[in-house]
Amino acid sequence: MSVVDPNLSSPMQPSFKPGASIKEPPPVQALINKLGLQKHPEGGYFAETDRDPLRVPNPFLASNGSNRNTTRAAPEDDSTRSASTTIYYLLSPGQPQGVFHRNKGRTMHTLHRGRGRYVIIHDHEKHGEEKARIETFVVGHDIRKGDQLQWMVEGGKYKASFLLPDHGDDIASEGLLISEVHAS
Amino acid sequence: MSVVDPNLSSPMQPSFKPGASIKEPPPVQALINKLGLQKHPEGGYFAETDRDPLRVPNPFLASNGSNRNTTRAAPEDDSTRSASTTIYYLLSPGQPQGVFHRNKGRTMHTLHRGRGRYVIIHDHEKHGEEKARIETFVVGHDIRKGDQLQWMVEGGKYKASFLLPDHGDDIASEGLLISEVHAS
Repeated sequence: MSVVDPNLSSPMQPSFKPGASIKEPPPVQALINKLGLQKHPEGGYFAETDRDPLRVPNPFLASNGSNRNTTRAAPEDDSTRSASTTIYYLLSPGQPQGVFHRNKGRTMHTLHRGRGRYVIIHDHEKHGEEKARIETFVVGHDIRKGDQLQWMVEGGKYKASFLLPDHGDDIASEGLLISEVHAS
Repeated sequence: MSVVDPNLSSPMQPSFKPGASIKEPPPVQALINKLGLQKHPEGGYFAETDRDPLRVPNPFLASNGSNRNTTRAAPEDDSTRSASTTIYYLLSPGQPQGVFHRNKGRTMHTLHRGRGRYVIIHDHEKHGEEKARIETFVVGHDIRKGDQLQWMVEGGKYKASFLLPDHGDDIASEGLLISEVHAS
Protein backbone atom coordinates (compact mmCIF):
# COMPACT_ATOMS: atom_id res chain seq x y z
CA MET A 1 0.00 0.00 0.00
CA SER A 2 1.29 3.44 -0.84
CA VAL A 3 0.39 6.42 1.31
CA VAL A 4 0.43 9.78 -0.47
CA ASP A 5 0.38 12.04 2.60
CA PRO A 6 4.07 12.54 3.50
CA ASN A 7 3.12 14.17 6.82
CA LEU A 8 1.49 10.99 8.04
CA SER A 9 3.04 9.20 10.97
CA SER A 10 2.60 5.49 10.54
CA PRO A 11 0.55 3.60 11.65
CA MET A 12 -2.53 5.82 11.92
CA GLN A 13 -4.47 5.86 15.18
CA PRO A 14 -7.88 7.46 15.45
CA SER A 15 -7.93 10.53 17.75
CA PHE A 16 -11.48 9.75 18.89
CA LYS A 17 -12.61 6.22 19.70
CA PRO A 18 -15.72 5.08 17.85
CA GLY A 19 -18.42 3.42 19.92
CA ALA A 20 -17.24 5.01 23.17
CA SER A 21 -20.79 6.25 23.93
CA ILE A 22 -19.60 9.80 24.53
CA LYS A 23 -22.31 12.37 25.14
CA GLU A 24 -22.06 15.09 22.51
CA PRO A 25 -20.54 18.37 23.78
CA PRO A 26 -23.30 21.03 24.14
CA PRO A 27 -22.17 23.11 21.09
CA VAL A 28 -22.24 19.94 18.95
CA GLN A 29 -25.69 18.93 20.25
CA ALA A 30 -26.92 22.48 19.53
CA LEU A 31 -25.60 22.18 15.96
CA ILE A 32 -27.31 18.79 15.49
CA ASN A 33 -30.60 20.24 16.73
CA LYS A 34 -30.35 23.49 14.73
CA LEU A 35 -29.59 21.72 11.43
CA GLY A 36 -32.03 18.84 12.10
CA LEU A 37 -29.35 16.20 11.62
CA GLN A 38 -29.98 12.50 12.11
CA LYS A 39 -27.60 9.55 12.58
CA HIS A 40 -26.17 8.18 9.34
CA PRO A 41 -25.98 4.37 8.97
CA GLU A 42 -22.31 4.73 7.97
CA GLY A 43 -21.46 6.82 11.07
CA GLY A 44 -21.82 10.54 11.76
CA TYR A 45 -24.92 12.64 11.23
CA PHE A 46 -26.56 14.04 8.11
CA ALA A 47 -29.52 15.94 6.68
CA GLU A 48 -30.57 16.25 3.06
CA THR A 49 -30.94 19.97 2.34
CA ASP A 50 -31.55 20.21 -1.40
CA ARG A 51 -32.78 18.05 -4.27
CA ASP A 52 -32.83 19.49 -7.78
CA PRO A 53 -36.26 19.00 -9.41
CA LEU A 54 -34.49 18.66 -12.79
CA ARG A 55 -33.94 15.00 -13.61
CA VAL A 56 -31.13 13.72 -15.85
CA PRO A 57 -30.44 10.27 -17.32
CA ASN A 58 -29.33 7.83 -14.60
CA PRO A 59 -25.73 7.01 -15.60
CA PHE A 60 -25.74 3.91 -13.36
CA LEU A 61 -28.57 2.05 -15.06
CA ALA A 62 -27.34 -0.81 -17.25
CA SER A 63 -29.95 -0.10 -19.92
CA ASN A 64 -28.87 3.57 -20.19
CA GLY A 65 -26.32 3.58 -22.97
CA SER A 66 -24.33 6.53 -24.22
CA ASN A 67 -27.34 7.79 -26.13
CA ARG A 68 -29.97 8.36 -23.46
CA ASN A 69 -33.19 10.26 -23.29
CA THR A 70 -33.85 12.93 -20.69
CA THR A 71 -37.31 13.13 -19.24
CA ARG A 72 -38.95 14.71 -16.25
CA ALA A 73 -40.12 11.31 -15.08
CA ALA A 74 -41.67 10.47 -11.74
CA PRO A 75 -39.00 10.04 -9.01
CA GLU A 76 -39.74 6.33 -8.65
CA ASP A 77 -38.63 5.80 -12.26
CA ASP A 78 -34.94 4.85 -11.93
CA SER A 79 -34.11 5.63 -15.58
CA THR A 80 -33.47 9.19 -14.39
CA ARG A 81 -32.09 10.80 -11.24
CA SER A 82 -32.00 14.27 -9.67
CA ALA A 83 -29.45 16.52 -11.37
CA SER A 84 -28.01 17.10 -7.88
CA THR A 85 -28.64 16.52 -4.20
CA THR A 86 -26.93 18.20 -1.25
CA ILE A 87 -26.47 17.08 2.35
CA TYR A 88 -24.85 18.31 5.52
CA TYR A 89 -22.55 15.70 7.03
CA LEU A 90 -21.13 15.90 10.57
CA LEU A 91 -18.56 13.89 12.51
CA SER A 92 -18.64 14.51 16.26
CA PRO A 93 -16.96 13.24 19.44
CA GLY A 94 -19.92 10.83 19.84
CA GLN A 95 -19.90 9.81 16.15
CA PRO A 96 -16.25 10.35 15.16
CA GLN A 97 -15.94 8.00 12.19
CA GLY A 98 -17.54 7.51 8.78
CA VAL A 99 -16.88 3.87 7.88
CA PHE A 100 -15.64 2.80 4.45
CA HIS A 101 -18.36 2.93 1.84
CA ARG A 102 -18.75 3.71 -1.85
CA ASN A 103 -20.88 6.32 -3.58
CA LYS A 104 -21.89 5.58 -7.15
CA GLY A 105 -21.53 9.16 -8.33
CA ARG A 106 -18.81 11.77 -7.91
CA THR A 107 -19.27 13.98 -4.87
CA MET A 108 -17.95 17.47 -4.14
CA HIS A 109 -17.16 17.96 -0.44
CA THR A 110 -16.76 21.44 1.07
CA LEU A 111 -15.68 22.26 4.62
CA HIS A 112 -17.63 24.48 6.99
CA ARG A 113 -15.87 23.85 10.31
CA GLY A 114 -13.59 21.47 12.17
CA ARG A 115 -10.84 19.08 11.11
CA GLY A 116 -10.73 15.50 9.91
CA ARG A 117 -8.79 12.89 7.99
CA TYR A 118 -10.10 11.27 4.84
CA VAL A 119 -8.91 7.93 3.48
CA ILE A 120 -9.72 7.00 -0.11
CA ILE A 121 -9.10 3.54 -1.62
CA HIS A 122 -8.72 3.75 -5.39
CA ASP A 123 -10.12 0.30 -5.92
CA HIS A 124 -11.10 1.07 -9.52
CA GLU A 125 -7.51 1.61 -10.63
CA LYS A 126 -6.04 -1.74 -9.64
CA HIS A 127 -5.34 -4.60 -12.02
CA GLY A 128 -5.79 -8.22 -10.91
CA GLU A 129 -4.11 -9.04 -7.60
CA GLU A 130 -2.40 -5.65 -7.35
CA LYS A 131 -2.97 -3.73 -4.12
CA ALA A 132 -5.19 -0.67 -4.51
CA ARG A 133 -3.69 2.80 -4.17
CA ILE A 134 -4.58 4.48 -0.89
CA GLU A 135 -4.84 8.23 -0.53
CA THR A 136 -5.19 10.14 2.72
CA PHE A 137 -5.38 13.84 3.49
CA VAL A 138 -6.45 16.26 6.19
CA VAL A 139 -9.45 18.54 5.74
CA GLY A 140 -9.41 21.77 7.74
CA HIS A 141 -8.98 25.52 7.62
CA ASP A 142 -5.20 25.66 7.87
CA ILE A 143 -4.56 25.64 4.14
CA ARG A 144 -0.97 26.88 4.62
CA LYS A 145 -0.28 23.47 6.17
CA GLY A 146 -1.95 21.68 3.29
CA ASP A 147 -5.42 21.21 4.77
CA GLN A 148 -8.14 20.81 2.13
CA LEU A 149 -11.23 23.07 2.08
CA GLN A 150 -12.77 21.36 -0.98
CA TRP A 151 -12.28 17.77 -2.07
CA MET A 152 -13.82 15.80 -4.92
CA VAL A 153 -14.29 12.04 -4.55
CA GLU A 154 -14.97 10.25 -7.81
CA GLY A 155 -17.69 7.60 -7.94
CA GLY A 156 -16.73 4.00 -7.21
CA LYS A 157 -13.96 4.79 -4.67
CA TYR A 158 -14.07 3.58 -1.07
CA LYS A 159 -14.13 6.50 1.35
CA ALA A 160 -13.74 6.74 5.15
CA SER A 161 -13.45 9.79 7.39
CA PHE A 162 -12.15 10.35 10.93
CA LEU A 163 -12.64 13.28 13.27
CA LEU A 164 -9.48 15.16 14.29
CA PRO A 165 -9.10 17.55 17.26
CA ASP A 166 -9.79 21.20 16.49
CA HIS A 167 -6.41 22.25 17.88
CA GLY A 168 -3.22 20.18 17.83
CA ASP A 169 -2.85 17.76 20.72
CA ASP A 170 -5.88 18.89 22.69
CA ILE A 171 -8.37 16.05 22.19
CA ALA A 172 -11.45 18.23 21.77
CA SER A 173 -13.66 19.00 18.80
CA GLU A 174 -16.82 20.95 18.17
CA GLY A 175 -17.41 18.69 15.18
CA LEU A 176 -16.38 18.41 11.54
CA LEU A 177 -19.22 19.87 9.48
CA ILE A 178 -19.18 19.67 5.70
CA SER A 179 -21.52 19.87 2.74
CA GLU A 180 -21.62 17.14 0.09
CA VAL A 181 -23.03 17.86 -3.37
CA HIS A 182 -23.79 14.75 -5.42
CA ALA A 183 -24.08 15.95 -8.98
CA SER A 184 -23.66 13.00 -11.34
CA MET B 1 -40.22 46.13 -2.17
CA SER B 2 -40.57 43.65 0.61
CA VAL B 3 -37.57 42.70 2.72
CA VAL B 4 -37.69 39.25 4.25
CA ASP B 5 -34.90 39.66 6.81
CA PRO B 6 -36.60 41.10 9.94
CA ASN B 7 -33.21 41.84 11.55
CA LEU B 8 -32.33 44.30 8.83
CA SER B 9 -31.98 47.97 9.76
CA SER B 10 -33.14 50.13 6.89
CA PRO B 11 -31.61 51.48 4.69
CA MET B 12 -28.68 49.11 4.16
CA GLN B 13 -25.20 50.58 4.04
CA PRO B 14 -22.21 48.53 2.88
CA SER B 15 -19.64 47.91 5.65
CA PHE B 16 -16.76 48.05 3.17
CA LYS B 17 -16.60 50.64 0.40
CA PRO B 18 -16.14 49.23 -3.09
CA GLY B 19 -13.48 50.86 -5.25
CA ALA B 20 -11.57 52.25 -2.27
CA SER B 21 -8.29 50.76 -3.58
CA ILE B 22 -7.55 49.07 -0.26
CA LYS B 23 -4.49 46.83 -0.20
CA GLU B 24 -5.55 43.33 0.79
CA PRO B 25 -4.65 42.38 4.38
CA PRO B 26 -1.72 39.90 4.39
CA PRO B 27 -3.84 36.85 5.41
CA VAL B 28 -6.26 37.62 2.55
CA GLN B 29 -3.42 38.03 0.03
CA ALA B 30 -1.93 34.73 1.25
CA LEU B 31 -5.30 33.04 0.68
CA ILE B 32 -5.58 34.51 -2.83
CA ASN B 33 -2.08 33.25 -3.66
CA LYS B 34 -2.54 29.81 -2.09
CA LEU B 35 -5.83 29.12 -3.91
CA GLY B 36 -4.68 30.75 -7.15
CA LEU B 37 -7.65 33.13 -7.25
CA GLN B 38 -8.09 35.82 -9.93
CA LYS B 39 -10.31 38.88 -10.08
CA HIS B 40 -13.89 38.19 -11.15
CA PRO B 41 -15.50 40.63 -13.62
CA GLU B 42 -18.50 40.93 -11.27
CA GLY B 43 -16.29 41.77 -8.24
CA GLY B 44 -14.40 39.55 -5.83
CA TYR B 45 -12.01 36.75 -6.74
CA PHE B 46 -12.56 33.23 -8.05
CA ALA B 47 -10.93 30.04 -9.30
CA GLU B 48 -12.57 27.12 -11.09
CA THR B 49 -11.61 23.99 -9.18
CA ASP B 50 -13.63 21.20 -10.77
CA ARG B 51 -15.43 20.43 -14.02
CA ASP B 52 -17.29 17.14 -14.36
CA PRO B 53 -16.26 15.30 -17.56
CA LEU B 54 -19.82 13.93 -17.80
CA ARG B 55 -21.93 16.08 -20.09
CA VAL B 56 -25.72 16.41 -19.81
CA PRO B 57 -28.27 18.04 -22.11
CA ASN B 58 -28.00 21.83 -21.96
CA PRO B 59 -31.33 22.91 -20.44
CA PHE B 60 -30.83 26.52 -21.65
CA LEU B 61 -30.69 25.78 -25.35
CA ALA B 62 -33.93 26.70 -27.13
CA SER B 63 -33.72 23.67 -29.40
CA ASN B 64 -33.46 21.27 -26.44
CA GLY B 65 -37.00 20.15 -25.74
CA SER B 66 -38.19 17.94 -22.93
CA ASN B 67 -37.00 14.87 -24.81
CA ARG B 68 -33.28 15.42 -25.23
CA ASN B 69 -30.40 13.20 -26.10
CA THR B 70 -27.37 12.88 -23.86
CA THR B 71 -24.02 12.60 -25.52
CA ARG B 72 -20.41 12.97 -24.52
CA ALA B 73 -20.00 15.69 -27.09
CA ALA B 74 -17.03 17.97 -27.52
CA PRO B 75 -17.09 20.90 -25.04
CA GLU B 76 -17.55 23.43 -27.84
CA ASP B 77 -20.89 21.80 -28.71
CA ASP B 78 -23.42 23.86 -26.73
CA SER B 79 -26.16 21.21 -26.97
CA THR B 80 -24.66 19.71 -23.81
CA ARG B 81 -22.93 21.10 -20.73
CA SER B 82 -20.80 19.74 -17.86
CA ALA B 83 -22.92 17.93 -15.29
CA SER B 84 -21.35 20.26 -12.71
CA THR B 85 -18.64 22.86 -12.20
CA THR B 86 -17.25 24.15 -8.91
CA ILE B 87 -15.49 27.43 -8.06
CA TYR B 88 -14.06 29.17 -5.04
CA TYR B 89 -15.42 32.70 -4.65
CA LEU B 90 -13.92 35.31 -2.31
CA LEU B 91 -14.99 38.77 -1.19
CA SER B 92 -12.21 40.77 0.50
CA PRO B 93 -11.60 44.25 1.93
CA GLY B 94 -10.14 45.22 -1.48
CA GLN B 95 -12.96 43.54 -3.45
CA PRO B 96 -15.89 43.70 -1.01
CA GLN B 97 -18.83 43.47 -3.37
CA GLY B 98 -20.23 41.08 -5.97
CA VAL B 99 -22.46 43.20 -8.22
CA PHE B 100 -25.92 42.11 -9.29
CA HIS B 101 -25.82 39.44 -11.97
CA ARG B 102 -27.79 36.41 -13.03
CA ASN B 103 -26.68 32.78 -13.39
CA LYS B 104 -28.65 30.65 -15.82
CA GLY B 105 -28.52 27.53 -13.66
CA ARG B 106 -29.21 26.89 -10.00
CA THR B 107 -26.15 27.19 -7.80
CA MET B 108 -25.41 25.68 -4.38
CA HIS B 109 -23.31 28.00 -2.22
CA THR B 110 -21.44 26.72 0.84
CA LEU B 111 -19.51 28.81 3.37
CA HIS B 112 -15.91 28.19 4.35
CA ARG B 113 -15.05 31.35 6.29
CA GLY B 114 -16.10 34.94 6.96
CA ARG B 115 -19.42 36.78 6.88
CA GLY B 116 -21.44 38.51 4.20
CA ARG B 117 -24.87 39.68 3.13
CA TYR B 118 -26.63 38.32 0.07
CA VAL B 119 -29.41 40.11 -1.78
CA ILE B 120 -31.59 38.16 -4.21
CA ILE B 121 -34.12 39.76 -6.56
CA HIS B 122 -36.85 37.30 -7.53
CA ASP B 123 -37.40 38.88 -10.90
CA HIS B 124 -38.91 35.68 -12.37
CA GLU B 125 -41.85 35.72 -9.99
CA LYS B 126 -43.28 39.14 -10.81
CA HIS B 127 -46.26 39.80 -13.05
CA GLY B 128 -46.37 42.86 -15.31
CA GLU B 129 -45.55 46.14 -13.53
CA GLU B 130 -45.44 44.51 -10.09
CA LYS B 131 -42.25 45.12 -8.08
CA ALA B 132 -40.04 42.07 -7.74
CA ARG B 133 -39.69 40.36 -4.34
CA ILE B 134 -36.35 41.06 -2.67
CA GLU B 135 -34.73 38.62 -0.29
CA THR B 136 -31.69 39.31 1.88
CA PHE B 137 -29.86 37.17 4.43
CA VAL B 138 -26.55 36.93 6.25
CA VAL B 139 -24.12 34.11 5.55
CA GLY B 140 -21.77 33.19 8.38
CA HIS B 141 -20.92 30.67 11.05
CA ASP B 142 -23.23 31.95 13.80
CA ILE B 143 -26.17 29.75 12.88
CA ARG B 144 -27.83 30.38 16.27
CA LYS B 145 -28.36 33.94 15.07
CA GLY B 146 -29.75 32.76 11.75
CA ASP B 147 -26.59 32.94 9.62
CA GLN B 148 -26.68 30.63 6.61
CA LEU B 149 -23.92 28.04 5.99
CA GLN B 150 -25.49 26.73 2.76
CA TRP B 151 -27.72 28.64 0.37
CA MET B 152 -29.24 27.65 -2.97
CA VAL B 153 -29.89 30.32 -5.59
CA GLU B 154 -32.20 29.23 -8.37
CA GLY B 155 -31.33 30.09 -11.96
CA GLY B 156 -32.62 33.38 -13.39
CA LYS B 157 -32.53 35.37 -10.12
CA TYR B 158 -30.42 38.51 -9.70
CA LYS B 159 -27.82 38.05 -6.97
CA ALA B 160 -25.44 40.46 -5.21
CA SER B 161 -23.15 39.93 -2.23
CA PHE B 162 -21.47 42.25 0.24
CA LEU B 163 -18.62 41.60 2.66
CA LEU B 164 -19.44 41.98 6.37
CA PRO B 165 -16.93 42.38 9.23
CA ASP B 166 -15.80 39.13 10.85
CA HIS B 167 -16.79 40.41 14.30
CA GLY B 168 -19.60 42.82 15.10
CA ASP B 169 -18.70 46.49 14.82
CA ASP B 170 -14.98 46.01 14.22
CA ILE B 171 -14.58 46.85 10.52
CA ALA B 172 -12.12 44.09 9.70
CA SER B 173 -12.39 40.93 7.66
CA GLU B 174 -10.08 38.14 6.59
CA GLY B 175 -12.41 37.57 3.65
CA LEU B 176 -15.63 35.74 2.86
CA LEU B 177 -14.65 32.48 1.18
CA ILE B 178 -17.29 30.19 -0.28
CA SER B 179 -17.66 27.36 -2.78
CA GLU B 180 -20.25 27.49 -5.56
CA VAL B 181 -21.38 24.28 -7.26
CA HIS B 182 -23.27 24.83 -10.52
CA ALA B 183 -25.08 21.61 -11.20
CA SER B 184 -27.90 22.23 -13.66
